[in-house]
Amino acid sequence: MANNEETPEVELSEIAMSETHGENSPYFVGWKAYDQIPYNESTNPSGIIQMGLAENQVSFDLVEEYLEQNSDAGPDSSGFRETALFQDYHGLLSFRTAMAGFMERIRDGAVKFDPSRVVLTAGATAANELLTLILANPGDALLLPTPYYPGFDRDLRWRTKVKIIPIHCDSSNDFQITRQALEAAYDSAMAMKIKVRGVLITNPSNPLGLTIQRSTIEEVLDFVTDKNIHLISDEIYSGSVFSSAEFTSVAGVLESRGNKNADRVHIVYSLSKDLGLPGFRVGTIYSYNDRVVTTARRMSSFTLISSQTQRFLAAMLSNQKFIDKYIEMNRDRLRKRYQMIIEGLRMAGIECLKGNAGLFCWMNLSPLLKKNPTREGEIELWKCILKEAKLNISPGSSCHCSEPGWFRVCFANMSEETLQIALKRIHSFMERMRNSREDII
Amino acid sequence: MANNEETPEVELSEIAMSETHGENSPYFVGWKAYDQIPYNESTNPSGIIQMGLAENQVSFDLVEEYLEQNSDAGPDSSGFRETALFQDYHGLLSFRTAMAGFMERIRDGAVKFDPSRVVLTAGATAANELLTLILANPGDALLLPTPYYPGFDRDLRWRTKVKIIPIHCDSSNDFQITRQALEAAYDSAMAMKIKVRGVLITNPSNPLGLTIQRSTIEEVLDFVTDKNIHLISDEIYSGSVFSSAEFTSVAGVLESRGNKNADRVHIVYSLSKDLGLPGFRVGTIYSYNDRVVTTARRMSSFTLISSQTQRFLAAMLSNQKFIDKYIEMNRDRLRKRYQMIIEGLRMAGIECLKGNAGLFCWMNLSPLLKKNPTREGEIELWKCILKEAKLNISPGSSCHCSEPGWFRVCFANMSEETLQIALKRIHSFMERMRNSREDII
Repeated sequence: MANNEETPEVELSEIAMSETHGENSPYFVGWKAYDQIPYNESTNPSGIIQMGLAENQVSFDLVEEYLEQNSDAGPDSSGFRETALFQDYHGLLSFRTAMAGFMERIRDGAVKFDPSRVVLTAGATAANELLTLILANPGDALLLPTPYYPGFDRDLRWRTKVKIIPIHCDSSNDFQITRQALEAAYDSAMAMKIKVRGVLITNPSNPLGLTIQRSTIEEVLDFVTDKNIHLISDEIYSGSVFSSAEFTSVAGVLESRGNKNADRVHIVYSLSKDLGLPGFRVGTIYSYNDRVVTTARRMSSFTLISSQTQRFLAAMLSNQKFIDKYIEMNRDRLRKRYQMIIEGLRMAGIECLKGNAGLFCWMNLSPLLKKNPTREGEIELWKCILKEAKLNISPGSSCHCSEPGWFRVCFANMSEETLQIALKRIHSFMERMRNSREDII
Repeated sequence: MANNEETPEVELSEIAMSETHGENSPYFVGWKAYDQIPYNESTNPSGIIQMGLAENQVSFDLVEEYLEQNSDAGPDSSGFRETALFQDYHGLLSFRTAMAGFMERIRDGAVKFDPSRVVLTAGATAANELLTLILANPGDALLLPTPYYPGFDRDLRWRTKVKIIPIHCDSSNDFQITRQALEAAYDSAMAMKIKVRGVLITNPSNPLGLTIQRSTIEEVLDFVTDKNIHLISDEIYSGSVFSSAEFTSVAGVLESRGNKNADRVHIVYSLSKDLGLPGFRVGTIYSYNDRVVTTARRMSSFTLISSQTQRFLAAMLSNQKFIDKYIEMNRDRLRKRYQMIIEGLRMAGIECLKGNAGLFCWMNLSPLLKKNPTREGEIELWKCILKEAKLNISPGSSCHCSEPGWFRVCFANMSEETLQIALKRIHSFMERMRNSREDII
């Protein structure tokens, strides 16, 4: 914009000039492609359907019903003053208490959360970066099982200069984490003389759409204890497990161990997925480590949640009747959606990893890559699907999956009708592939 | 909390263990003292009165009136879905447009702000850190005129590892920035082999409560251009200048220069002070540099504003009638408050720097430090005032003022009645000091 005739361009920082924010990953590039020609039933029926966005739209009517029945939930003038001024980085006690209660409710009351350990952040994005800054120095590493959420490349690495070292998981055991894979990742860090500060898991897994088995959590917990490192358990999809019985939180495993070695464990949670409120920017860190709680709270000054939103949600989450109904119906609806997509894909000749949680399935298109079973082949196939089937899905390589041919497909950010259209497009695409496969891949 | 019999304590990062967050400054220590025994007219009339918090409570009734007249401002079910899902880091266009318009309105329409250059952050705290991360590498420095807002030690240094080098200003010219002081600060950085990346000014100044003269802004602009470095102009009190004619924004100076060399200039703004909404966490970066805009927007993922709050404020700020009335009445009321405290202090025998803006005055108690005109003497006096007069004010040393004996005193975060009580306490304290001064300082 400026006219710089006389002076050279003014310099920016290394972080500003670096490309590690990851916006050029196919994960985000696909979003931009969608933004250019988005599908719309009436105005653009041949547009791209966005299946790369893990958004939960299946239960909005329940929140809307709550709003209609609680029309005083807004920023009326009574109490406005107090709310507008509230900038204490502890957050509203009523909201922290409600968050702790909601996290307990999702876990069927099997574990307790202490509101004084709930640190509030503007979304899980900020929560994960805060924890990384607190646990690791620049150049240190966190170990992450692959495939992992593409956004972690930005959230954990970009501004912190911390490295991510993959714990390679594969389809031979349904992408489960093993002690062997943990040790291999740790050893590879050692070989590079990189200090490992912790393991970060997503449970339920994004992108697998699957909860981690209790025995695996135990194993990971033993591993981090043996190595004297941290464990971050990102449980932002814990309320989106189709059957609550199939979810074990690390909090439950810790409690069964009498909270021994708990001070290395930190849980991340958010209301973006389970309640479908990403715009409200509500994330939280629950740490068993006093110093981490104190430091995270200090850092949360940079990423506080609007007190207006805290106040609104404190009331909503404290309404037990609403919450009970929401959690149950949301689980049922997600399960139904999941079954719909799985069956639709099966009819198109596609198998998925058996999932039980989340807003996506993990789809196996590796049979289509026989001639070119590589990352490049996968990206070529992804572009084909984007261009021909007009579907934006997320290639496994953007999740650092070590096996080519897997894709994350989101199913909860659209209507059932749109999902059916997407399935028809996949079906047609697969038919075309079968007929002319030699020519395409 | 955890039982760590078997394993050593797990390590945290250097940032987590560092003390550079500055919470041990008297600035924050005084807040904690206040929190323990806060003044309350009926329940605790001998408690501490908080005069260390730059909060604007003088115009809340106007916002409350707006809320009563616009009862649909809350999160009703219509449009809720769209709002709840909106997490685009650009922010709501309606809100960015309203923010740009509000910033223009504060400047009497003398400058234009382009909504596409407005980057949203959760408060100015985050805005200042973001800019620091974008402009400077760890170990580099920003130059700040002293006295400066104590929170900058945290906001600009803690997580960025950037240094602050003071531009020493003093009472000989009413703490104005001079070319000589700028050069001296720059030279001291050079002598320490520290790379200077920019100058950060607050205009109006916090803690001086004074706008920066146009000629000084011109001088600072010439300086940063000569050195090919950046200028951050934090203008979060720009709507709290008692008379708008007395405020010159760097934006106005740039426009008069045809926006030449503008790409090194970045403005920080917020609704926390001028609208009295710190709880809503609304900050903004307005940069003339395209790359800074892009990078700041990417970084804003870590510090987004609740879309509920964006939507609410987009409507409020777009209501021209309300905004016109608010800005005018708020200026009038702040001027009245300022005159009240200045006169009260004068009657107690205390002089202040002549101010024209903000929520505080800059009070000169150096005559009380004749026996011990040092930082230690100042802190001793501060403790005295906290303990005996039961007033929490901010010592100049917490603002890195190079002359001992100055204090920032806030006047807009309380009722007129409480302010009168505070003034009575100061009056009595000064009388006691005059009578028994030899014994105290």
